[in-house]
Amino acid sequence: MPLATKGAVKTLEPHEVAALGYDILLGNTFHLFLEPGAELIARHGGLSAFMNWPGPVLTDSGGFQVFSMGHGTVADEIKARPPRAPQSEGGREGAILAIEEAGVRFRSYTDGVERFMGPETSMEVQASLHSDIALAFDECTPFHVPREYTESSTERTHRWLARCLAWHGEHGPSDQLVFGIVQGGVYEDLRRASAREVAASGCAGIAIGGSLGQDKAQMYEVVGWAVAELPQELPRHLLGIGDVDDLIRGVELGIDTFDCAMPTRIARHGMALVPDPEGRWRTDLAKASARDSHEPILESCPCPACAGGYSRAYLHHLLRSRELTALRLITLHNLSFVARLMADLRAALAAGELAATAAALRGGAAPGAASVTAGLPD
Amino acid sequence: MPLATKGAVKTLEPHEVAALGYDILLGNTFHLFLEPGAELIARHGGLSAFMNWPGPVLTDSGGFQVFSMGHGTVADEIKARPPRAPQSEGGREGAILAIEEAGVRFRSYTDGVERFMGPETSMEVQASLHSDIALAFDECTPFHVPREYTESSTERTHRWLARCLAWHGEHGPSDQLVFGIVQGGVYEDLRRASAREVAASGCAGIAIGGSLGQDKAQMYEVVGWAVAELPQELPRHLLGIGDVDDLIRGVELGIDTFDCAMPTRIARHGMALVPDPEGRWRTDLAKASARDSHEPILESCPCPACAGGYSRAYLHHLLRSRELTALRLITLHNLSFVARLMADLRAALAAGELAATAAALRGGAAPGAASVTAGLPD
Repeated sequence: MPLATKGAVKTLEPHEVAALGYDILLGNTFHLFLEPGAELIARHGGLSAFMNWPGPVLTDSGGFQVFSMGHGTVADEIKARPPRAPQSEGGREGAILAIEEAGVRFRSYTDGVERFMGPETSMEVQASLHSDIALAFDECTPFHVPREYTESSTERTHRWLARCLAWHGEHGPSDQLVFGIVQGGVYEDLRRASAREVAASGCAGIAIGGSLGQDKAQMYEVVGWAVAELPQELPRHLLGIGDVDDLIRGVELGIDTFDCAMPTRIARHGMALVPDPEGRWRTDLAKASARDSHEPILESCPCPACAGGYSRAYLHHLLRSRELTALRLITLHNLSFVARLMADLRAALAAGELAATAAALRGGAAPGAASVTAGLPD
Repeated sequence: MPLATKGAVKTLEPHEVAALGYDILLGNTFHLFLEPGAELIARHGGLSAFMNWPGPVLTDSGGFQVFSMGHGTVADEIKARPPRAPQSEGGREGAILAIEEAGVRFRSYTDGVERFMGPETSMEVQASLHSDIALAFDECTPFHVPREYTESSTERTHRWLARCLAWHGEHGPSDQLVFGIVQGGVYEDLRRASAREVAASGCAGIAIGGSLGQDKAQMYEVVGWAVAELPQELPRHLLGIGDVDDLIRGVELGIDTFDCAMPTRIARHGMALVPDPEGRWRTDLAKASARDSHEPILESCPCPACAGGYSRAYLHHLLRSRELTALRLITLHNLSFVARLMADLRAALAAGELAATAAALRGGAAPGAASVTAGLPD
């Protein structure tokens, strides 16, 4: 799921994202709640209609962004990067005023006004956004807290899930699904218990959230615990994860869907996704190596940038000249790369050849290349 | 001619500009000379091939940008806006080191290195860029200089034109045309003499440049003097002019082609072109009036933004959220608006109905609307 954080996949139009092979986008409840506001989007027919996207959208609960203000860089934490600065009582973290059973009081980053978001608020906002899949409101527990905090936070998240489902059953759009969120930090018993409890809640699908550990090895272990407790019939989404190797490993672990800012964000820094047996999966088009290159980003890539005839030299020049056209072309390439990678993995699953395909991709095969998908259904 | 200043029409891909109805782009010799350099572009097949544009390009001579460093804001001057700050010996204006018969020595804004550009340099760079139409190197004489300076500068520009044509005849690409540039400031005798001299030089077309006066009325008068001296068979280009009312009046005065940053630049500030009997021709989509509007920018407009289904409310939200997608959509609209306006004027000329069409457009008719082009050839 490409990110349409504030109602747009950055630099692109929705129909272009659809043409790359994507079926669903993720919109951020928190940002849209603050600006332009859910009521306005409701008057314009809901988020899909407002942003002119012909398909479904998933909205997150807003909890991730709200708690990021309180816990510092939650995005770093769930990706197992060390914190950039020590947490403090004051400063930016002060934007969270209180975390209570009812919900969270915080100060808006846009206008400094005190606001409140709790399970019912989140569901109400998501009902106004009229997303196709809503996420239950959860506390995204950070990595650097004691086990006791993670445990009590996870239990509160379960109580919030029950309240979300209750509110939704009474007031929510009948064509909107609600996914619950598994928390539990890096503790096996808490993760497994959370997965069982969320799966039994009556929600329509499962998202795995929160801190996934201090490195990728631990992340895969934590995801594995959660997935092991989940029933086959409920779709599983892994929140905020999307490095190329994480996508491959996530599918191997039994994850169905992902969302991540990576493909679009690194594009805006001049980084293009490429096959890479060494596991970096990216090349920096702003570097001198691209300066005089007649080659496309990736030979035989069918994306609008590569098949469209743009050389690395031209993209390099546009990046150095700060031309927005470059950010758009690399975004198209990166999203196309990920879409084809996921198509390869789906085809491999259908053909019972996931291990071989995953190995080929890790070995440097281009997504969508004949060597990867030869003999597989399209 | 949309501006591809540094090798890209800002926010767009070349094929999108072609789809809007444009046949030719303008690239800036000065910027491309500094970065990425004409030699690199030559190795990539010339400017059209480098930027993946299927059609011809016109390159300016570089003189405008070089002299802008010396004269302050020449762009303001030719558009009859008062200077923003007094000229000084030091500061940014110091980037010009000397204007001599041979050419101009200046300090590059990119790396501070002293460089030289003269008639032969300019033609050599434009030969490397392999543009389809090259402009002769001229001094873009500013408005706030004595008549004596304008006269001697204009005469030097004529000598530079002869040197440009001589160099091009010996070394230039045989499939590249050279246009001469009419100067002469706001002095009728100088303008008329310059037009006659340039027309007699053997160049393939005429561009009208330099200061065009202190207001639009004077600009139209100055253009009229020059056009009156020009032969019918040479195409006439008006440099750097492109407000909507200037395009209509320019065609009435006998101008064939224009270039201007306005449609793309104002788009990046949230301004969309609209019909306007009061002559402003634009609406500010960042203003509150657009906040909750279900309307497109312009009803029945066939551009990708309006026909694509984007509401003013959505564009307003994207602008406030600093989403690049908005800049792109409004750029598409503005360039489409101007392309259809010019198509209307061409059709009106062919049908001998220019006055009626110009009056309809000035009265608020949408470009391309049936009321404007009814009964006219497409």
